[in-house]
Amino acid sequence: MSCKTISAANVAESFISELKQQITALETKPLLVAFLANEDPAAAKYAEWSAKTCAETGLRFECRRCPRTELEDRLIEANEDKNVHGIMVYYPVFGGTQDGYIQNIVSPQKDVEGLCFKYRYNMYHNVRYLDKENTIKCILPCTPLALVKILEYIGAYNKILNYGDRLHGKTITIINRSEVVGRPLAALLANDGAKVYSVDVDGIMELHRGQGLHLKKHEVFETDCTLPEALSRSDIVITGVPSPTYKLETAQLKDGVIAVNFSTAKNFQDDIKGKASIYVPSVGKVTVAMLQRNLLRLFEYQTKVKI
Amino acid sequence: MSCKTISAANVAESFISELKQQITALETKPLLVAFLANEDPAAAKYAEWSAKTCAETGLRFECRRCPRTELEDRLIEANEDKNVHGIMVYYPVFGGTQDGYIQNIVSPQKDVEGLCFKYRYNMYHNVRYLDKENTIKCILPCTPLALVKILEYIGAYNKILNYGDRLHGKTITIINRSEVVGRPLAALLANDGAKVYSVDVDGIMELHRGQGLHLKKHEVFETDCTLPEALSRSDIVITGVPSPTYKLETAQLKDGVIAVNFSTAKNFQDDIKGKASIYVPSVGKVTVAMLQRNLLRLFEYQTKVKI
Repeated sequence: MSCKTISAANVAESFISELKQQITALETKPLLVAFLANEDPAAAKYAEWSAKTCAETGLRFECRRCPRTELEDRLIEANEDKNVHGIMVYYPVFGGTQDGYIQNIVSPQKDVEGLCFKYRYNMYHNVRYLDKENTIKCILPCTPLALVKILEYIGAYNKILNYGDRLHGKTITIINRSEVVGRPLAALLANDGAKVYSVDVDGIMELHRGQGLHLKKHEVFETDCTLPEALSRSDIVITGVPSPTYKLETAQLKDGVIAVNFSTAKNFQDDIKGKASIYVPSVGKVTVAMLQRNLLRLFEYQTKVKI
Repeated sequence: MSCKTISAANVAESFISELKQQITALETKPLLVAFLANEDPAAAKYAEWSAKTCAETGLRFECRRCPRTELEDRLIEANEDKNVHGIMVYYPVFGGTQDGYIQNIVSPQKDVEGLCFKYRYNMYHNVRYLDKENTIKCILPCTPLALVKILEYIGAYNKILNYGDRLHGKTITIINRSEVVGRPLAALLANDGAKVYSVDVDGIMELHRGQGLHLKKHEVFETDCTLPEALSRSDIVITGVPSPTYKLETAQLKDGVIAVNFSTAKNFQDDIKGKASIYVPSVGKVTVAMLQRNLLRLFEYQTKVKI
């Protein structure tokens, strides 16, 4: 079979070695503090894993456990603590909209996950810098950013085109429209020039910058397009359905499709390699590299300027 | 029966006449723009009602319908339009956490509902002014504010005590912990000195400022206290369960309790008046008065200072 399977570890490699180099050169090693305020064993596992990967690159990592009723105060404390350079929270804490409040408690200066309103607003509006001189880049959420980096690695971004337009001509379906991954990812890819079908259980949205990319940022439209129609038109299909029983039918995909799965479950069928040109079964390792990259960036800004 | 039933219309009366007086004195009548981006007939009804009540006091009201995919752009447009003084949105639009993003799109200068992060943060932290000179009051969300005003009207706030401590000694149960009413209300009442049991389907939280109100703002605790226990201790019980079948058992309440219902359904049993000292069956008319009061405040600030 001609399909290339790309492992996240391979994509992460160059980022990891760049991170190591940068961190070695630093006198103070940046400190990432992760708050664990739920009883989810998956979150605890993820914290262990984060500790391990930070140790590998030379970053300092601290997992702080606290009752969820104290989380807000602990976050404010960490915001004000100059020895803390990055802050993250394992969600869900309260679940639902109260977690949206917590996301905004984390200071933009330390928000390695890019979940506070300021970063989200800028991302949706295709504003890439915090300052007018374009020296301070906005922080992007880790998993969507990881997916962009993967698409760059596998050649989906066309470097012949101008920076910011490199997905022009590409049609992409994303199955997941969560506020943490699917919706920001759809916006990022549409802002880079793609036509995106954003799919969730409630229906499909279409995002793009108009014919010839005449818009500076994407627009969103409700569409009557069905999932089979979207899939039949898509050069790239990205899935993130957190269910072990959900399987996308290979027959519905275009021959030579690029298939990327960011769910912890396998969303493609076993025969995907008989149809896809490129298959990326998971993205987690790139996500963790992006988390560290965001931390380094914030560390640099903290020592330079106020965001 | 000795129970006094207090109608929201009576509580609203003095606010409405104050509003009319203030508005009459204004050369430019403040304009409230409400965005209707869902197909909910209840929201359309509410918009009609808002139009009617604004007309009564002399405020200008405009309901703008738009597809939800255009809502963000329309809100930004209204933020920048000097002829618009207040902005509100009929939720849910997208539902879930995406609506939390939309709430932050509304400028704090025009946020009559007090739902943007800045106002919510200040409310939870018992910060009542936006400026250091204490001249610009924060906007509070309309329904929680209406409930505070109702509790003041019916004498639950003790004016002998210092402003900000006037619920000291009171125990209050609130059945509803939504981000829009129940949780902010619990915080407001606890910040005013009450001991609050905040109840929802997931359990009960306890909020208070510690013994002798030694804290400046409330703290939150998970509690094992059951609903019957909470009710048996509560001087005031406030309900907001949006279900016609939910009925709080009168037998579980303290004799002489103050019973307040802000749900559109009747959450108390018909025999409530045989036990309560005061019964407030609905709050909507006070909520609308508070909405208009918030608008007038923002109008005043817009002509004076930048928030």
